[in-house]
Order: sequence, then C-alpha cells, then structure tokens
Amino acid sequence: MAPILLNCLGNDRKEYMEETFHVNNPNLDGMEEDILYHFSLGTKTHNLPEMFGDIKFVCVGGSAKRMKAFAQYIHTELNLPGSNDEPKDICEATDRYCMYKVGPVLSMSHGMGVPSISIMLHELIKLLHHAHCRDVVLFRLGTSGGVGLAPGTVVVSEKALDYNFLPQFEQVVLGKVIMRSTELDAGVSRELLQCSKELPNLPTVIGNTMCTNDFYEGQGRLDGALCSFSHAEKLEYLQRAYEAGVRNIEMESTVFAAMCRVCGLKAAVVCVTLLNRFDGDQITSPADVLVEYQQRPQVLVAHYIKKRLALIALTPP
Amino acid sequence: MAPILLNCLGNDRKEYMEETFHVNNPNLDGMEEDILYHFSLGTKTHNLPEMFGDIKFVCVGGSAKRMKAFAQYIHTELNLPGSNDEPKDICEATDRYCMYKVGPVLSMSHGMGVPSISIMLHELIKLLHHAHCRDVVLFRLGTSGGVGLAPGTVVVSEKALDYNFLPQFEQVVLGKVIMRSTELDAGVSRELLQCSKELPNLPTVIGNTMCTNDFYEGQGRLDGALCSFSHAEKLEYLQRAYEAGVRNIEMESTVFAAMCRVCGLKAAVVCVTLLNRFDGDQITSPADVLVEYQQRPQVLVAHYIKKRLALIALTPP
Repeated sequence: MAPILLNCLGNDRKEYMEETFHVNNPNLDGMEEDILYHFSLGTKTHNLPEMFGDIKFVCVGGSAKRMKAFAQYIHTELNLPGSNDEPKDICEATDRYCMYKVGPVLSMSHGMGVPSISIMLHELIKLLHHAHCRDVVLFRLGTSGGVGLAPGTVVVSEKALDYNFLPQFEQVVLGKVIMRSTELDAGVSRELLQCSKELPNLPTVIGNTMCTNDFYEGQGRLDGALCSFSHAEKLEYLQRAYEAGVRNIEMESTVFAAMCRVCGLKAAVVCVTLLNRFDGDQITSPADVLVEYQQRPQVLVAHYIKKRLALIALTPP
Repeated sequence: MAPILLNCLGNDRKEYMEETFHVNNPNLDGMEEDILYHFSLGTKTHNLPEMFGDIKFVCVGGSAKRMKAFAQYIHTELNLPGSNDEPKDICEATDRYCMYKVGPVLSMSHGMGVPSISIMLHELIKLLHHAHCRDVVLFRLGTSGGVGLAPGTVVVSEKALDYNFLPQFEQVVLGKVIMRSTELDAGVSRELLQCSKELPNLPTVIGNTMCTNDFYEGQGRLDGALCSFSHAEKLEYLQRAYEAGVRNIEMESTVFAAMCRVCGLKAAVVCVTLLNRFDGDQITSPADVLVEYQQRPQVLVAHYIKKRLALIALTPP
C-alpha cells in the first residue's frame, strides 16, 4: 500500500493531516496490504481509488434491506442511467455488512449497536483514505424511539448524548477509558432542517439524541426479559432526558459522531421516531406505516444530496 | 398472553420462578400481547408454544450465513427427515436476525457486539418463556482472536472477562450502572472439553474470554482508522490479558454469560481463534482455511447435542 498512500500524502505529512485527516494512524502508511476484513475488500485485491474515489456522500443505517432500498431510491432521485432493480452488493462475499455504490453516494448497513457500527466506521474511514476521497459527508439514517414527539417525526441530532445526557463517547484503549466529543456538524444539521421545510409531510426537529447500549433496560423499557424498575421510574428517567434536550433514543449515534469528529469528517444523524416512549415501549404501528416512517430520513437526505449536487436550486440559508 | 403465561405459572409464583426462571420481569404477565419486534414474531400473531415448545438447544453466532450453515449441518447430524437444502428463516420478515429451527435445536444469528446480541437475548428469552420451554442450554458459536494460541484452536470459555480482566458485565439501567456476574456453566464446559477429545482435528482448551466493545482500539489492534499506541504497548496489554487467563478476545461473551446467568439458563461460549494476536492483527488466512476453522465450534457443539440426545453413547465425565 505504500505507493497509494504516498500518492495522497503530498510533500508534507503535517499538511496532509490537516487537509484530509481521515485516518489517524501512522501505522497504515507502512502496511504492505490492508485487508478490510468485514467488508471482504483489500488494498491488494481491489483497486479502491477506482472503485470509490468519486464518493462524496456516505449514508449508513442499521438494516441491510433498508440500505438496499435507499440505494434504489437515490438511483432514481439522481436520474442515473441503468437499472436500479438489483443493485450489486459490493460486500456480498461477507454477510457482516452490505454496501451499494450509486454514483457519488455509498449506501451501507451497519447492524445494531455501537460495536457493530464502530467496526464498520474503522473500515469505511480506511476505505475512504485508501480511495483518496475528499470532502465526504456521512449520514446515519436510522430509526429511534421518540421522547415527547409524535411517531413519524424526524430528528436531526444536534449532539449525541450518553446515558448521563453528556455529549461524550467512552472509548476503551488498551484497558484505559478515554472520552471523545460527540458534537455533530451544525452546518449540515441546519441545512437538513431547511430541506425538511421544502418537502411535504416531513415533520422534522433538531434535538439531542441519546445513545444506549441496549434496547430494553438501558432505554427504560418495561417489556424486556429483565426489568427491575417501575413505570413511574421509567417516566422520571425519560422526563430527565427530555429536560436535557433529548428528543430520541437510538443505539449508534455517539460512536458515529465521535469517530467522524476525530477523523475530520462532516457527519449528521437523521432518525425517524417509531413511537413516543412516554406512551409505551412496544412498536405497534402497522407495517405499512412503519415503512413510510422509515422512508422519511431517506427522502430528507436525498433532497440534501440533490441540492449539494446542484440538481435542484439551493435555497439560501 | 395472560392465559399462556398462567399455564406455566403453576400454583405458586415462587415455585415457578425457582423452577423455570427464564424471564425476570413481572410486567410480562399483565401484557395483552408481546411483540418480539426484532424477530417479527408476537404472542398474538404466532403460536409460540406450538412453534418452539420442544426446543432444548439454542445455538447463536454472529453471522447469518454461518448460522444457516449450522442449521443445515445439524439437520444432517441428527438424521432428521426432509431436505435441509433451503431451511426456512423464521425471522425472514425482518433482516435484523435470522432463525432456523431444526428439531430440538434453534440456530440464530445475533450480529456483532454486545448491544446487538443483547436485543436478541431479551427477545429469545421471552420467546422461550412464552413457548414454555424447559431445560434449554444455550451456546454461542463464534470466531475470535487468539491470545497465545495457534490459529484454529477452539476456546471453551471458563469466564467472560471485561477489558479490566474482571468477570463482570456493566449494565446501565435508567442511567445507573449495575454489575452482573459473567460466570458460565462449568459442567457444560467440561463436557464440551471431553467431546473435543473424542473428535479428530479439534484442538480445544478451556480459558477465559475477553469481551470488548470494538474490534480495533479496544482489542489493541494497530491497523484501525485510529491508533494512538505502540506495538510494544499492544504486546504489554496482551501479555497482561494472557496472565489473567485470557485465551481469546471477542465481542459478545460478557452480556451472553450475564443474561443467561440472571435468567437461570445454562450457557457456554465456544469460539475458534482465527489468528494469534501476539503475531499480528489482520486476518490473512485463506478463505478455505477460515471456513474450516469456523466449522470447528459447530462440530464440537453438534457432538455435544448428539450425546445429550443419546444419539451417541455418553462418555463418563
């Protein structure tokens, strides 16, 4: 890999770090080969600059089916040639993640939870680095539980918060805990809110997003296999979250925000709420309603991408 | 759901808790319906006792393809009637997990990392409860990085350890951290070790398993998008792990051990090592070698299941 890495280094290591700053690991320069194991891709077996060099937008979400549907949708929205009936899964040799490339857009699944998206982000950021990508914006398009919002509301995250409502991500490095900031790009969030106003039927707010490490006890659900707290204690915790600006709860935003920030990548988290957690824990809406809800972050981000690509007129901020 | 729940309660709540003790949540008794959202199953829409009541062994692993292959393999090993060419994915309406039932064996995928397997375990344990299952043994069949072992060695976990090499799992409940023990069933582990001696080409040890929340920085890999430590610091951390009895590293064992223990379910973790982390970080073995390695936990657990079902003679312990 040394030659490819050298190509994008420029004359000065410091200049390179300031300008592109995707990876933050001096060891990568010296590696003969980098196998992106969970993507089934590698620098010796694949021409990553040719395959991915024109990527400008990366959209990630938990579900493989949903990210395939997004690949098909953005293909139509960008008026790209060819059929979008059966997009090719670039990671088909593995079942850990799926990956579709549609013009300048990469659509990927990341599974559920911080560890799963963390593996994907390490290998994605190395992929963008090896492919010499520039000025890439990342979006997480997700589902979430709403906190004081009507189901179907889209939340663009201002900050990703931990279970103590703090904007930080706890990363263990060789047995030591370090904290990373989880602030997201305010400019992209503002633009997304503006986009939502230009679209019908897309109720959208900017708010904080709480990220937990499980779906049941950590989110105060009363319906898990284990539950040791009362309905009143659940509501009290959700109320405190609401007062800290939390408008939705999901399971990936802190590490997504933290890693993008450390690597100098602009990033936004756009999740639809499937229920209002003050009203219940189970997701009981009919399947067709849930499908329409899940399309809302896709519609919003597709609109943003089209504006950025000047396929539709930019509205002044 | 009340009638079904009552059916398995017996005359005395305490007696029920002591005897079956799968779920640990009094709220479930009062729920009219329980939707196992991430399985796309529910107590109103599916007859769970009829579908799952005879389950005695649950085998879980990260990869959907691998757990489908295990379903096909155990079908052959148990000499069950019918074709195993295309087993039916019971969770096909969702892409979060896959689930195959083969006689008394359930084979399921759980994705990567503690949060992903945690969601699966909550809904699996509720499923076993709703289906009135009894005397179920759970196995995690996984892949891992070895610590001081030749690649291809199978590690049966004695305890699952956190990043500080302690046998505990940190669970957040309504913003408070509680600790749960991660000891596993010593009897099942011993039986598995005995099984390994009865099979050819199945190098197996009992050792501790460290569970981390990421694949790169938390496991001391030098090849992630981010790395802030030296080769020497990595080796020093692995050496300390080795001295604490750690023989492999993976990403799900602590919550698996902790939840099974709290719910009174016998459980074992059986992972093959794909590399020796003292020698490197990247998984470079050829695909066919990795496939054979990944079959080893399956072969071992299938042998155990056959012995338990008295399909082959039990060797005295």
